[in-house]
Amino acid sequence: MIDSLSLSLIRLALREDLAGHGDLTSRLTIDERARATARVVAREEVVVSGTPLATAVLAEVDGAIDLDEVVSEGEGATAGDVIARISGPARSVLSAERTFLNFLARTCAVATQARRFARAVEGTSATVVDTRKTTPGLRLWEKRAVRHGGCGNHRFGLFDLVLIKDNHISAAGSVRGAVSRARATAPFCVKIEVEVGDEAGLNEALEAGADVVMLDNLSPEITRLLVARARERAPGVLLEASGRISLQTVRAVAETGVDVISTSALTVGAPHVDLGLDFV
Amino acid sequence: MIDSLSLSLIRLALREDLAGHGDLTSRLTIDERARATARVVAREEVVVSGTPLATAVLAEVDGAIDLDEVVSEGEGATAGDVIARISGPARSVLSAERTFLNFLARTCAVATQARRFARAVEGTSATVVDTRKTTPGLRLWEKRAVRHGGCGNHRFGLFDLVLIKDNHISAAGSVRGAVSRARATAPFCVKIEVEVGDEAGLNEALEAGADVVMLDNLSPEITRLLVARARERAPGVLLEASGRISLQTVRAVAETGVDVISTSALTVGAPHVDLGLDFV
Amino acid sequence: MIDSLSLSLIRLALREDLAGHGDLTSRLTIDERARATARVVAREEVVVSGTPLATAVLAEVDGAIDLDEVVSEGEGATAGDVIARISGPARSVLSAERTFLNFLARTCAVATQARRFARAVEGTSATVVDTRKTTPGLRLWEKRAVRHGGCGNHRFGLFDLVLIKDNHISAAGSVRGAVSRARATAPFCVKIEVEVGDEAGLNEALEAGADVVMLDNLSPEITRLLVARARERAPGVLLEASGRISLQTVRAVAETGVDVISTSALTVGAPHVDLGLDFV
Amino acid sequence: MIDSLSLSLIRLALREDLAGHGDLTSRLTIDERARATARVVAREEVVVSGTPLATAVLAEVDGAIDLDEVVSEGEGATAGDVIARISGPARSVLSAERTFLNFLARTCAVATQARRFARAVEGTSATVVDTRKTTPGLRLWEKRAVRHGGCGNHRFGLFDLVLIKDNHISAAGSVRGAVSRARATAPFCVKIEVEVGDEAGLNEALEAGADVVMLDNLSPEITRLLVARARERAPGVLLEASGRISLQTVRAVAETGVDVISTSALTVGAPHVDLGLDFV
Amino acid sequence: MIDSLSLSLIRLALREDLAGHGDLTSRLTIDERARATARVVAREEVVVSGTPLATAVLAEVDGAIDLDEVVSEGEGATAGDVIARISGPARSVLSAERTFLNFLARTCAVATQARRFARAVEGTSATVVDTRKTTPGLRLWEKRAVRHGGCGNHRFGLFDLVLIKDNHISAAGSVRGAVSRARATAPFCVKIEVEVGDEAGLNEALEAGADVVMLDNLSPEITRLLVARARERAPGVLLEASGRISLQTVRAVAETGVDVISTSALTVGAPHVDLGLDFV
Amino acid sequence: MIDSLSLSLIRLALREDLAGHGDLTSRLTIDERARATARVVAREEVVVSGTPLATAVLAEVDGAIDLDEVVSEGEGATAGDVIARISGPARSVLSAERTFLNFLARTCAVATQARRFARAVEGTSATVVDTRKTTPGLRLWEKRAVRHGGCGNHRFGLFDLVLIKDNHISAAGSVRGAVSRARATAPFCVKIEVEVGDEAGLNEALEAGADVVMLDNLSPEITRLLVARARERAPGVLLEASGRISLQTVRAVAETGVDVISTSALTVGAPHVDLGLDFV
Repeated sequence: MIDSLSLSLIRLALREDLAGHGDLTSRLTIDERARATARVVAREEVVVSGTPLATAVLAEVDGAIDLDEVVSEGEGATAGDVIARISGPARSVLSAERTFLNFLARTCAVATQARRFARAVEGTSATVVDTRKTTPGLRLWEKRAVRHGGCGNHRFGLFDLVLIKDNHISAAGSVRGAVSRARATAPFCVKIEVEVGDEAGLNEALEAGADVVMLDNLSPEITRLLVARARERAPGVLLEASGRISLQTVRAVAETGVDVISTSALTVGAPHVDLGLDFV
Repeated sequence: MIDSLSLSLIRLALREDLAGHGDLTSRLTIDERARATARVVAREEVVVSGTPLATAVLAEVDGAIDLDEVVSEGEGATAGDVIARISGPARSVLSAERTFLNFLARTCAVATQARRFARAVEGTSATVVDTRKTTPGLRLWEKRAVRHGGCGNHRFGLFDLVLIKDNHISAAGSVRGAVSRARATAPFCVKIEVEVGDEAGLNEALEAGADVVMLDNLSPEITRLLVARARERAPGVLLEASGRISLQTVRAVAETGVDVISTSALTVGAPHVDLGLDFV
Repeated sequence: MIDSLSLSLIRLALREDLAGHGDLTSRLTIDERARATARVVAREEVVVSGTPLATAVLAEVDGAIDLDEVVSEGEGATAGDVIARISGPARSVLSAERTFLNFLARTCAVATQARRFARAVEGTSATVVDTRKTTPGLRLWEKRAVRHGGCGNHRFGLFDLVLIKDNHISAAGSVRGAVSRARATAPFCVKIEVEVGDEAGLNEALEAGADVVMLDNLSPEITRLLVARARERAPGVLLEASGRISLQTVRAVAETGVDVISTSALTVGAPHVDLGLDFV
Repeated sequence: MIDSLSLSLIRLALREDLAGHGDLTSRLTIDERARATARVVAREEVVVSGTPLATAVLAEVDGAIDLDEVVSEGEGATAGDVIARISGPARSVLSAERTFLNFLARTCAVATQARRFARAVEGTSATVVDTRKTTPGLRLWEKRAVRHGGCGNHRFGLFDLVLIKDNHISAAGSVRGAVSRARATAPFCVKIEVEVGDEAGLNEALEAGADVVMLDNLSPEITRLLVARARERAPGVLLEASGRISLQTVRAVAETGVDVISTSALTVGAPHVDLGLDFV
Repeated sequence: MIDSLSLSLIRLALREDLAGHGDLTSRLTIDERARATARVVAREEVVVSGTPLATAVLAEVDGAIDLDEVVSEGEGATAGDVIARISGPARSVLSAERTFLNFLARTCAVATQARRFARAVEGTSATVVDTRKTTPGLRLWEKRAVRHGGCGNHRFGLFDLVLIKDNHISAAGSVRGAVSRARATAPFCVKIEVEVGDEAGLNEALEAGADVVMLDNLSPEITRLLVARARERAPGVLLEASGRISLQTVRAVAETGVDVISTSALTVGAPHVDLGLDFV
Repeated sequence: MIDSLSLSLIRLALREDLAGHGDLTSRLTIDERARATARVVAREEVVVSGTPLATAVLAEVDGAIDLDEVVSEGEGATAGDVIARISGPARSVLSAERTFLNFLARTCAVATQARRFARAVEGTSATVVDTRKTTPGLRLWEKRAVRHGGCGNHRFGLFDLVLIKDNHISAAGSVRGAVSRARATAPFCVKIEVEVGDEAGLNEALEAGADVVMLDNLSPEITRLLVARARERAPGVLLEASGRISLQTVRAVAETGVDVISTSALTVGAPHVDLGLDFV
C-alpha cells in the first residue's frame, strides 16, 4: 500500500514518459501477448531501499506485473547482484522500466550514502541525521532510505519541531525573546530547538529552556568545548552539530560528543547509483 | 504561467513541508504583519535555470510574495552573486524558503552541469543531449535546464521517437524485422532510431532504413570507424554515441564525428549546487 | 491564501450543492447583472473563527465577491452583531450562501466552545487542549478555532508525538518495553508521551523516561495525588489529564495541578451556532 | 464501492492524521507483522449508518484490513453492543482507528438523531426531512443516514428543486413574478417551491402554481389554519413547515397536517455519539 | 469563473496537446516576446455558445491572453463573421488555438443544432429538449448550449428526476408497482415520470399518479390520440414524446399536443461546425 | 488497465450523471440484491473500438460488474449484433448504462468512419490520417479508434512534430527562415514538416530541408503536379495532402500519389452510431 501523495508523484512521472502515443516502440515491435521476465541488477555496490515505491510504479502501469524481492530493504548488494525479479506482459514491463528505475535508483542512492555515514561514525554516540534538502515529492521515501542506511531523521517538515534560527531570533530581538515567545504558545507536545553560533548563544539558549541546541558551522574543537559546557549546565538537553559536514569530517564531529549531526550530504549529496534491468 | 503537472508537484512538495501545524516556528516567533526581503545567493559557480518553477512555489505559498530576477535563465553566476530578490510577508517567505531552494537548486545543478559538457565539446560538430534518467516529476524542467546550459534534448518520453533496443530486436527476431515492423505501422511523423553494438548491427540498421543509429558502448576508435562507414553508405542518417560518457571522455567521443552524444551525467549525474537565502 | 487541502474540501462541498443545473432558482429568478450586499449576522453569542476559510468559499464560487471582516477572528459577537459584510453578483452570493455558512458556523462553533472551556479554567495553570476527534478535512481549522477560543492544541496527527497507549503497551509487553523501544528509534526531535491508568503505570512511565504522562480516566482526587507524586520524582515531565471531561468538571480537574487537559468536547462536542446572511 | 467525491474526502482526512512520519508510535512499538482484531463498540444507544464509508477508510489505509458488519445500517444498538469486527495488520488498524471512528460516529449521530425525530411524529402523516445544513463533503452520507433513521430528504443541493425565497421574491418584485418567471423557463422536470410567511403569501403562491409551499417560521396554530386553506384551494400541492423545529415541538407541527417538516436539527443539530474500538 | 469540473476537463485536454516538449514549433520559430492578435471567425452559419468555457482554455494556457466577445452567446453569426477577438503572447495564442477551437466548435455545434429544432417547432406549444446522450465531461455546457439555441433541458443526470423505464417496471412487476414503490419513498421534491409504449401503459401510469408520462417510439397519429386521452383524464400531467425524432419529423410530433419532445439529435446528433482563428 | 488521464475523464463523466441522490430511480424501484444481464447491441453497422475505456466506466461504477467481449476491437458488427455481454448488480448496471454507452458510441463512431475512409483509398499508396480536431479528453482513444478503422495517426499533439504553418512562416519572415531556425534548435529526434500552398512554397520547403511537406487546400490536379515535382527533387520527403477532404473526394486525392491525407472528417466529422443495452 502506497500513500496517496506518493501515488500522485508516480502518476506525474508516468505522465512524463507515457504521453501521447505512449510507448510507441513496444507497441510497434512487441507482440501484445508476449511476456517478459527481467532481473533488477545492481551495477555497483548499493544498499536497497524504496522497493514498495518502485513496485507501485509497476502496478500503476499494469496490475499484471509482479515483482519478487530478492534483497530486502536495508540490506546491501554488490555489483552484479540481483535485487529483485520482475515478470509480466512484455510491453508493460518495457513501458514501466525507466520510471521504475528512476525511482528505485534515487532511494537506493540515499540509503547507500547513509550507510557510508553510519559506518563513519560507528562506535561514537552520535547519530547522523538528514535535513529538509530532499527531492520534491520524495521526502518521505528519502527519509525512510536514510533509516535503511542506518542513519536517523531530523524533522519531517516545518510542523514537527520548533527550530529557531537567525531570522526568528532577529525578528524576536533575542534568543531569549524568541524562545520564551515560542514556549508560551507552542503546543505542549512539540520540542523547541535553537540554532546558535557561539558560546553566548548557547548560554542564552540553555537559559531560555531549549530542548535541543544546534551548534552551527563550528569547528570540531569549538564544538567539543561547547558540548562540555552544555553537558555541565543542562545534562538533559540534546546537542546537534550542523554545517559543512562531509564523509571526511563527520567522524571528527561525532567524537566531539554531540548527540546528532545533521547533513544534506545524505540526500541531495548522495551520488547516483547505477541499477539496470536485464531481460532473461 | 506554470503547467498543471508542475503545479501538482509543487503542491506535493509543499504538503511535505507544511502539514499539520504548518510552519510552527514562524507562526510562534514572527509577527503576522512583518515583512521580509531576501536575496537568493549563489554559494558557488552556477548557471541559472528554473526561475519560473521556483517562483511558482512562492506564489503557491502566498500570492503576496514577489520575486525579481537578477540573473536571467541561461546566464552564469559566481559564488556570492545575487540571482534574485524576494520580498513579501515574513512568515510566508520563511515558510516557502526550503521548498523554493530545493526546486531551484535542482534545476540550476542540471544547467550548470550541462554548461560543463557544452564547453567540453565546443568546436566539434557534436551536441551533447540528455536521457530519460531524470527526477520524477521534473523531467520537463531538467530538460529545459539542459538547454539553458547549452546542450540539447533527446526524446522527452516513450512517445516521441521509436527507439529500437536489444529487447525489441530479440522480440522481433532481427534488426531488419524490428525496423520493418515499426516502419510499416509507425505514425509517419515519428523518426525511427536503432541501437547497435557493432558494424554488423550498423549495416542492418542502415539497410532497414533507420533515421538515426545509436552506437552504444563503443570505444572512440571504433565509433570513429563506424561513423565513417555510415557517412559513406547513408549520409542523411543521424549518428548518436552513448554509454559511459563522462566530462573526461566526452570530447574524444565528440571528435569521432557523431552528431549527438547522450549521457545521464547531465541530469542524475549533476552535482548538487549550493544556493541560499540571505535576509536583509 | 488557503492551503490546497482546504481548497479541495471547499470544492467537494461546492460540488455537493452546485451539481447539474447549479443554482437553478437564482438563474431563473435573478437578473444576471444584479448585485447584492449582505451582512453575516450572529444569531446568538459566538466567538469568530474561520473567516479566511469561508472567504475562500466565496472566492471559489466567484472571484468578484468581496468580504469585509467586521469582527476579527478570536473576538466575540452577541446575537444580532454583524460579523462581516459581503457584496458581489447577486446570483453568485446566493449560490455561495449555504456552503459559506456551513463552513463558518462550524469553525465558530468550535471557537465558541473553546472560549467556554478557557474561561472555566481561568486562573489555574492548566491549558485545555483538543484531541484528534475532529471533522474530516477540517482538523486544521478546528484546531485553529480552538486557539482562537483561548485553548491549546494537542498533537495534529499521528506524526508529531509518540503517544503510547494500551495497545502499544500490550504489544511491547510493558510500559518500560514500549518506551525504551520507542526511545531507541524515535527521531530525536519528537517527544514521547505515555498513557497510564494508575500509580504503578505512572511510576513505570517516569522511570522509562517519558516526556509527557497522560493520566487517563481518573477522578480529580486521584489525579491530584498522582500529580504530586510525579512532581516530586520528575519535575520536568508534563502531565495531562484526559477522559470524561465536561464544562462542569473541567475546573476541578484543572485544580489538580495538571499542565494540560484534553477533551473532544472542544470539537465534536461543540454545539452548532446559528449564523445567517441578511440581504440589505 | 465508494464514489470518488467520498474517496477524496477520505484521503483529505487521512492526510490530516498521517502526514510526515505517519503513525510514528505504531511503527516504533508494534511489530511489522503483528495482526490485530478489534470490535467496534457502541458506548451509548445509536442507530448505525455509514458503514461503507468507514470501511473505505480502512481500505484506503490498508487493503488487508477486513470489516465484518454485525449490526446493519438502519438498525439500532445499545451501549456495549458490538457493531462490527475489524481485523488486519496491527499497525494499519491502529493507524486507521481515529479517522475510521471520526467518520462513523458522524454518520451514526445523524441516523440516531433522525430516529428520534421519526419516532416523535409516528402516527401522523408528516415526514421530517433534512436541510442543506450539512458537514462539508459529507452531505450524501448524512442524507443517507437521515433515511436510515427513518426520516426523509429535502433537496440535495441547489440543483434539484426551484425553491423561491425572500431574496428571489424581492428580486422579481412579487411571488407571482418570481414563480411565473421560473415556471416559464424552468426545466419541465423540476418542481417549484415557494417560501411564504403568511396567508397572503400562501394565496399568491397557490395562484402562481407552486408545486410545494413552505410555511416558514409560523406557530402550529397558524400553520394548521393555512394548511386547511391550502387543502381546499389546491389539494395536490405539498405543504412544508420549517423554522425553529425541535424534538419538543415537532409533533405539534406534524399534527397541523403538513406533509413535510424540515429541520437542520437532523444534521448540524445531531449530538455526537460515542463509539470505540476494543482490541481483543 | 468556471466550475472545477470544467477546469479539470480543460486541463485534461491541454495535457493531450501540450505534453513533453509542449508547443515545439512555436518555441522554435516564434520570438518569446512576440504578440499576436487573432479573430475567431465563423466559417459557416452558427449560433454562439460556450465562450466562457473556451475563454478558460486561454486563461489556463496563459493568463496574459485576452478575449473580447463580439457575438454574444445565444446570438447567430454567418460565414465570415468575427465572433471574438483574441490577443496575447504569440506563442501562447498559438499553443492554445486548437484546444480553444475544439471546445468552442463543440458547444456552438449544439447551439446551432438546437436553433434548427427550436425553429422547426415554432408556433406549437411543444418544447424540444435534450437527453443524457452528451459528450463525456461536457454535459453542462452542451445543455447550456441547448438553451442558447432556444430549446430546453431534460434532466441533468440520474439524480434530478425519477424516470421509470422498462427495466424498472419489469423489476417491480408492473407500472403500478414501480410508481407506487417510488412514490412511497421518493424525496417529496422530485417528480416521477413513467415511460409507456401504448394506451394501457398510459392508463396505468396516470392511475399510478405519474407527474410526467413519456410516450416512447409512437407514431404522431397514436401520440395525438394518447395526448387527447391523457388531457381528459389528468389535465395536470406533463406529456413527453421521444424516440426517432429528426429535424424532418419533429414538427409533426409537436403538433400532436405534447408538452415536451426529447431527442439526442440536439447533442450527439449535432453536425460539427467550422470555426477558425485568423491572425491579423 | 486504463491510464490516469482517461480515468479522470471517466470520473468527470460519472459525476455529471450521478451527483446528489445518484441513480434515484434504480434505488427506489430495484431491489438492492437484484442482478442483471444485458447485451450491448449494435443498432446499425459499426466497427468496434474503445471497449477497455467503456469497461473502465463499469469498473468505476461497481467493481462487481463484468463485461465479456463478443466482437473484438477493430472488427465490424451489423445491426442487431451483440458486441459484448454485461452482468452485475442490477442497480449498478443501470446506473452505469448511459455513461458506458456515451463513451463506447463515440469511439465506435470514429472507428466506423475510419473504416469508410480506409476502404475509399484501398489499393492506393496513401494513408488517411487524423488531425488534432478531437473530443477534449478523448484524443488518445479517438486516435486509437482511427487505427482500429484502418487509418493512421498524424501527430498526437504540439509536441511530437515540428509543423510550420502560415503564422510561423510570417513570424520568421520566410519558409527558409522558419525551417532553418527550427532545424538549428529542434531536438534531433523530431521531424520537421512545412505547410505550403503552391509550387514556390514547395520548392522553398524542399530546399530548406523539410522532412515532410503538407500540400494544403489544393485541387487533386495541382496536388498531382506538385507530387511529381517533389518526387524528382527530393525522393525521401513525405508528402501530405490536407484541406476539404471528404469521403467523396478522398480517393481522387489518394490517386495523386501523396503519402498521407489528413482530415478531421475521421473524428469531429464522424456521425454518431447507435448502440443500445438490451436487458435479458
